[in-house]
Amino acid sequence: MLGFALFGCGRIGRMHAGFVAAHPRAELVRVFDVHRPAAEAVAAETGARVAETVEEALADPAVSAVLIASSTDTHVDLITRSAEAGKAILCEKPIDLDLRKVDACWQRIGHLGVPIQIGFNRRFDPSFAALARRLRAGEIGEPRQVIITSRDPDIPSDDYMKVAGGLLRDMTIHDLDLARFLLPEEPVAVFATASALIDERVRRLGEHDTAVVVLTTASGKQAVITNYRRAVYGYDQRIEVVGEKGMLKAENRHPTTVEVWTAERTAARDPVLHFFIERYREAYAAELDAFVEAVLEKKPVPVGFADGRAALRLADAAYESLATGRLVRLD
Amino acid sequence: MLGFALFGCGRIGRMHAGFVAAHPRAELVRVFDVHRPAAEAVAAETGARVAETVEEALADPAVSAVLIASSTDTHVDLITRSAEAGKAILCEKPIDLDLRKVDACWQRIGHLGVPIQIGFNRRFDPSFAALARRLRAGEIGEPRQVIITSRDPDIPSDDYMKVAGGLLRDMTIHDLDLARFLLPEEPVAVFATASALIDERVRRLGEHDTAVVVLTTASGKQAVITNYRRAVYGYDQRIEVVGEKGMLKAENRHPTTVEVWTAERTAARDPVLHFFIERYREAYAAELDAFVEAVLEKKPVPVGFADGRAALRLADAAYESLATGRLVRLD
Amino acid sequence: MLGFALFGCGRIGRMHAGFVAAHPRAELVRVFDVHRPAAEAVAAETGARVAETVEEALADPAVSAVLIASSTDTHVDLITRSAEAGKAILCEKPIDLDLRKVDACWQRIGHLGVPIQIGFNRRFDPSFAALARRLRAGEIGEPRQVIITSRDPDIPSDDYMKVAGGLLRDMTIHDLDLARFLLPEEPVAVFATASALIDERVRRLGEHDTAVVVLTTASGKQAVITNYRRAVYGYDQRIEVVGEKGMLKAENRHPTTVEVWTAERTAARDPVLHFFIERYREAYAAELDAFVEAVLEKKPVPVGFADGRAALRLADAAYESLATGRLVRLD
Amino acid sequence: MLGFALFGCGRIGRMHAGFVAAHPRAELVRVFDVHRPAAEAVAAETGARVAETVEEALADPAVSAVLIASSTDTHVDLITRSAEAGKAILCEKPIDLDLRKVDACWQRIGHLGVPIQIGFNRRFDPSFAALARRLRAGEIGEPRQVIITSRDPDIPSDDYMKVAGGLLRDMTIHDLDLARFLLPEEPVAVFATASALIDERVRRLGEHDTAVVVLTTASGKQAVITNYRRAVYGYDQRIEVVGEKGMLKAENRHPTTVEVWTAERTAARDPVLHFFIERYREAYAAELDAFVEAVLEKKPVPVGFADGRAALRLADAAYESLATGRLVRLD
Repeated sequence: MLGFALFGCGRIGRMHAGFVAAHPRAELVRVFDVHRPAAEAVAAETGARVAETVEEALADPAVSAVLIASSTDTHVDLITRSAEAGKAILCEKPIDLDLRKVDACWQRIGHLGVPIQIGFNRRFDPSFAALARRLRAGEIGEPRQVIITSRDPDIPSDDYMKVAGGLLRDMTIHDLDLARFLLPEEPVAVFATASALIDERVRRLGEHDTAVVVLTTASGKQAVITNYRRAVYGYDQRIEVVGEKGMLKAENRHPTTVEVWTAERTAARDPVLHFFIERYREAYAAELDAFVEAVLEKKPVPVGFADGRAALRLADAAYESLATGRLVRLD
Repeated sequence: MLGFALFGCGRIGRMHAGFVAAHPRAELVRVFDVHRPAAEAVAAETGARVAETVEEALADPAVSAVLIASSTDTHVDLITRSAEAGKAILCEKPIDLDLRKVDACWQRIGHLGVPIQIGFNRRFDPSFAALARRLRAGEIGEPRQVIITSRDPDIPSDDYMKVAGGLLRDMTIHDLDLARFLLPEEPVAVFATASALIDERVRRLGEHDTAVVVLTTASGKQAVITNYRRAVYGYDQRIEVVGEKGMLKAENRHPTTVEVWTAERTAARDPVLHFFIERYREAYAAELDAFVEAVLEKKPVPVGFADGRAALRLADAAYESLATGRLVRLD
Repeated sequence: MLGFALFGCGRIGRMHAGFVAAHPRAELVRVFDVHRPAAEAVAAETGARVAETVEEALADPAVSAVLIASSTDTHVDLITRSAEAGKAILCEKPIDLDLRKVDACWQRIGHLGVPIQIGFNRRFDPSFAALARRLRAGEIGEPRQVIITSRDPDIPSDDYMKVAGGLLRDMTIHDLDLARFLLPEEPVAVFATASALIDERVRRLGEHDTAVVVLTTASGKQAVITNYRRAVYGYDQRIEVVGEKGMLKAENRHPTTVEVWTAERTAARDPVLHFFIERYREAYAAELDAFVEAVLEKKPVPVGFADGRAALRLADAAYESLATGRLVRLD
Repeated sequence: MLGFALFGCGRIGRMHAGFVAAHPRAELVRVFDVHRPAAEAVAAETGARVAETVEEALADPAVSAVLIASSTDTHVDLITRSAEAGKAILCEKPIDLDLRKVDACWQRIGHLGVPIQIGFNRRFDPSFAALARRLRAGEIGEPRQVIITSRDPDIPSDDYMKVAGGLLRDMTIHDLDLARFLLPEEPVAVFATASALIDERVRRLGEHDTAVVVLTTASGKQAVITNYRRAVYGYDQRIEVVGEKGMLKAENRHPTTVEVWTAERTAARDPVLHFFIERYREAYAAELDAFVEAVLEKKPVPVGFADGRAALRLADAAYESLATGRLVRLD
């Protein structure tokens, strides 16, 4: 059994808590949140104990792993302290919004050798994971172009946007990781264009809601990411890879298989699953499962610190492209 | 080139005329209709000449084949006269509504050996024909159950229903022929149930608008036909065959591939092609093509007089089942 | 909290045990199986205690409800004893294979007024339940024809078939219940045809593997069930209802949304979810949830003893139709 | 009736000839090809007369319109001479591969006011045209992002590639026109990346087979084009537009609606329609129809010389982006 401390008991922390509590090889030992009632609510639901401080949680000998689901600006500190306390770490993306802090963090903890997994949950989505497996098994031969469609159902609150680091570091970063996951080689250059078309709020914050990011690899393979932040029909999440021997696609998921056929229209289905907690429910569970297995069986975690850094590096390059209108080469 | 006389210049006759006129190996020589202006309209569109009488059309030495698209009650007479004049015959279904007349007709003309093809156009639909070919090629091994969904977009006029011979002889007859086309053996028993649910008009005429017909073969294979006469979303025409190694399906056809995704619904398409002239356009053209080829190349026609009789025989048995509540065995 | 005793710890009992153990308002208190190691395995997984006998389980004051998942021949006895012990009952279908025993059981326990829910899980499938809700909400107006496609992935073992009561009482009974669930009126007549086409084993047992059942209501509405027992592409479970204003369909479920497009074929997906534990997982969970809520909140259970009887009555009538070749009217 | 001369009797000229000959308001009068037997073959099929020279065709008083389907390097000359002879012009894309020649041509003939339509046939595809109509009718409100997937089934011959002007001027030009057709404003900037991944032949010619082109408008709307030149499953042609109130998609077309479900895979369809003559058959016919109607009824043609120029201008800008790695702004 792997004993967990959870840092951060907001919406996503609460979801993680449920998965840890239900996992046959994991146990939720301690929960912490700067807002104590949030921690208490999760404790009540799961039987975990509230920790008064991060120290208290890390000092608990029953805690072997931490799950970091607090706000982004606390990630580096929590990773550092947890690593120094010798805990295995599963940290929500992103590591940080500032690449220098990410690098400084690694400088300090890299040599400690604790398992650190970054929460790029989409790699664990059953459909995306199956697509990746089949791609690697050679089902369409060499992949040449990866096309990722990623649309949120709606614009976040202003408060969220102010601290999220920008569309490309907050939302696109998932797609950048997916692109790395699916491309047969690392991207070496990035182009991005983005605009604010949907809501005046976005423009006022200097933010974006509609974007295209193109990645290229040294041999000329390409990934295209299209983002949009108010898909009124639900959380639109698709992948398409075209290659030597054909195409693999992973399509959207609907709550039911019901279709309605009327005088106005046919084969009409309900809106797709609304947002990440519903859409990627199985992915979050599988992500935890992979982490628990890796830690308990001393295998490498499937998405490491370097993957977290690489996606942020791509997001930074995308912002540079946005500013300069150039294809930005990564060195 | 095969010179045609067309008998009957109503809606379906006019459609046939267009196909004959456009066919590279056929020529529309004469057109006849009891309502002369209808014949004149078709003549003007196609360059054919109006015949004053059936005799005149049959006497024209340029006429080697006839296409009978007049009202059902004229079919047997026109088939008989055309056969006796030595013409090849393509006759719209049904041969007649009365099996005894059909048998008497054959008694008289069977020995003449002229090619007679009955207009079961659906066998020539590109999707249905492809399904049948793949079935015969063994793609799903031995077929065990055939399921035919056949729904008209709306109830015909009272005038039409009064002379059409009843739902099972008018509409279902196409599906009975398709069932024979797809089953690996002849049906030996028929069960039917039918009711009038859609429109008071139907009930007043003692007619039906909603039906199920089940056919079984000697070895126990089954065909199920479901009929409904007001599918508000269009002309619903589907086939499904399940067998030893899987299932083959032929789905509905839509006017375009456009889908709309909104806050209310996703993947919504337009209503399906409305009715037989649109839905089976390619089928009618292919039916004519098969007839022309068979006649010119002295090969057997693909759907013969016996097929026309057999479908009517099944429809009669379905009515007997309806009346008696029994599975009716064909002798 | 609702304390449960589980009778029967085979494959399906074990699945139910998991759902009870995970339910926030239920608790698995006691488990019993005639084969003690099966009970012990479930006890180990869930923390429940093994009961040596049915009496011991029923005598436990923490047990307020029973879940009967033992072999069919034990159902009536367990229902009777549980009802007499005042327990709420969730019993796997069928109640029994013999309608007289079912009626005798009710004679004895009907007046006790304990909640009895029969395990027609498909009513709780998210897609089927959504279809039914939308049907009742009038989305397609009055329903006229219900079409249920139900195909198992493979033939059961001879041992299973010998005691299962025949295809129509074992497999079709689910579809008969679904038909009742979806039709706006009770069926009043039944026609059935069935054969053994798939495997010599089936024929030797005098059993069937391919069937069509047609139900009609007093006003002439129809339900058509097609069954087949070796759909090599998976567990094929679909519903279609056509009505006044259109059609509602519930389609098959696939493990992922992945499609592959190659030179040979396009849009190809994996086989559908293989069998009932995977396909109806959410349905079983929702069925339990509905039972727990009904019992705790003293509301009527959603699928009662009378529903269990009615489906069996239809299956019996279907066998009578099979034997006589007649549409059998229910009195 | 509109009398046509056809210049160029290769594969695409021959297809156009068939449509002109079959059009109720058009007549194919003269056909010309530098390779006389090609002209003779088309003449034999359609009843048109072979012209010995372009002059002879243009001098025929029965010729009111020309259809230019000869090789690209002859377009400007034929447009110029036809315009000076006062003929209405339907010219296959592109006008020329050199923007200066295009501009010089317009300089010379623009004032003549003859109708000139450029053959961007895809605007007339029933599905794409329906999507555009619904977009303009406001079905998804303001469009924000247009995504065009365009993949050829295979690499052309070396001979073809040597004269075709490069992937972006030959293949992508259609997509650039479609993007202009669907975007609510003109693009003002272009980014492109392209590589040769599929076949060594392509690399040797300095050509590309895999590309991404991104267009942006002044207000920040975006179009993304992805191209690939060997989609082994057929000619992949799709459009997706996401906007304020949802998404419109136009999907691929298949030869039939047949699906096969087996133990290995489900819902598998045949490869999509192979190439442009099959896929865009209705589009070519509708394009001609629009031209004939515009000329006969003295309405503006739907796709003019300026559209032909604009698409070429975008292709040139895409090549500039490819060379410089910059987002190229159009002035």
